[in-house]
Amino acid sequence: MNIPSKILLNAVEQISSLPGIGKKTALRLALSLLKRSEDEIGSFSSSILNLKHDIKLCKHCYNLSDQEVCSICANPHRDQQILCVVEDIRDVMAIESTGQFKGRYHVMGGIISPMDGIGPNDLKINELIERLKVEPVNEIILALSTTMEGDTTAFYLFKKLASFDINLTTIARGVSIGDELEYIDEITLGRSILNRLPYNKTLLNNP
Amino acid sequence: MNIPSKILLNAVEQISSLPGIGKKTALRLALSLLKRSEDEIGSFSSSILNLKHDIKLCKHCYNLSDQEVCSICANPHRDQQILCVVEDIRDVMAIESTGQFKGRYHVMGGIISPMDGIGPNDLKINELIERLKVEPVNEIILALSTTMEGDTTAFYLFKKLASFDINLTTIARGVSIGDELEYIDEITLGRSILNRLPYNKTLLNNP
Repeated sequence: MNIPSKILLNAVEQISSLPGIGKKTALRLALSLLKRSEDEIGSFSSSILNLKHDIKLCKHCYNLSDQEVCSICANPHRDQQILCVVEDIRDVMAIESTGQFKGRYHVMGGIISPMDGIGPNDLKINELIERLKVEPVNEIILALSTTMEGDTTAFYLFKKLASFDINLTTIARGVSIGDELEYIDEITLGRSILNRLPYNKTLLNNP
Repeated sequence: MNIPSKILLNAVEQISSLPGIGKKTALRLALSLLKRSEDEIGSFSSSILNLKHDIKLCKHCYNLSDQEVCSICANPHRDQQILCVVEDIRDVMAIESTGQFKGRYHVMGGIISPMDGIGPNDLKINELIERLKVEPVNEIILALSTTMEGDTTAFYLFKKLASFDINLTTIARGVSIGDELEYIDEITLGRSILNRLPYNKTLLNNP
């Protein structure tokens, strides 16, 4: 693309660095931003700066939070004995919207994916083990996407947590294999939390 | 969507205010921005601020430009006698990439579209008329999208420019009716510039 202005070209290159945004879409977005007032542009760009400056990871569960401790961990009515292990904040939001889970979360910040160069040490797995040493957890629900990466991560956690006297369960695979967790409808996802199975039972079904 | 962090929610709302970006996509983009370093976020957000602060409209043709006069208007080798009237900068880029047009442009900044509340006075039409009074233009090519809005705008310009002794032409409608100009392949678009027709001749074909 032959963009005549360097300033515009710079903005287009920045916007098209976002996932799923190509050059043509980036140009369309940049031109739509150009039509706004200075104030609107200012609050747009400061909302993105604040994102990095002010947002925190909850020191317990690594969920995104405005405070040191997220609202779920800070809630005394949540069950302290059940942890739900998820990939990222979008999965927390998806499970919260079902209203079926009353425990707390542990957000790994990703999933084991050798293709993307993400190994176990890039995730909050050691932090999970540290939590288990001090918190009264007796059940861990693995709520991972039913993809190869999700299965790999679940199996890694199964091995890693074998020494703990903890009931390791996984959400029921009523949802179709290959789907990303965050796009599943709330009823299916809610039911899959209620019908969770011991993790080693699901291993038998996958020879 | 039940986003736990106000800072994240604010960023998601800002990003989803862009055209064609929904809440789920905005959340995905915000989370991908969160994974970047502070420096990267800084240059991302300043590229958007600079867009509004530093970019100018060329004082002749209203093309976007880093200088007072855009590189096309500043080029002495471009034909001063032919003006190509387009909707926005993307159309300039599309026509420039064909290499078939050696004149200069007039960018209206939009198209007459009553549905979107855009009338003739929102466009640079009076500015076009002022240009014609001082510049040695003897041909105007209307290079507008072949949509109802494009036809309306062309007809408005035809009426408005009737008093000038100027050859009013329109790019050949070899391209399929209903297409947006910017998505047409370069060869078709280039040929449609070479085979331009007097505007009143195209009126006869559309009773």
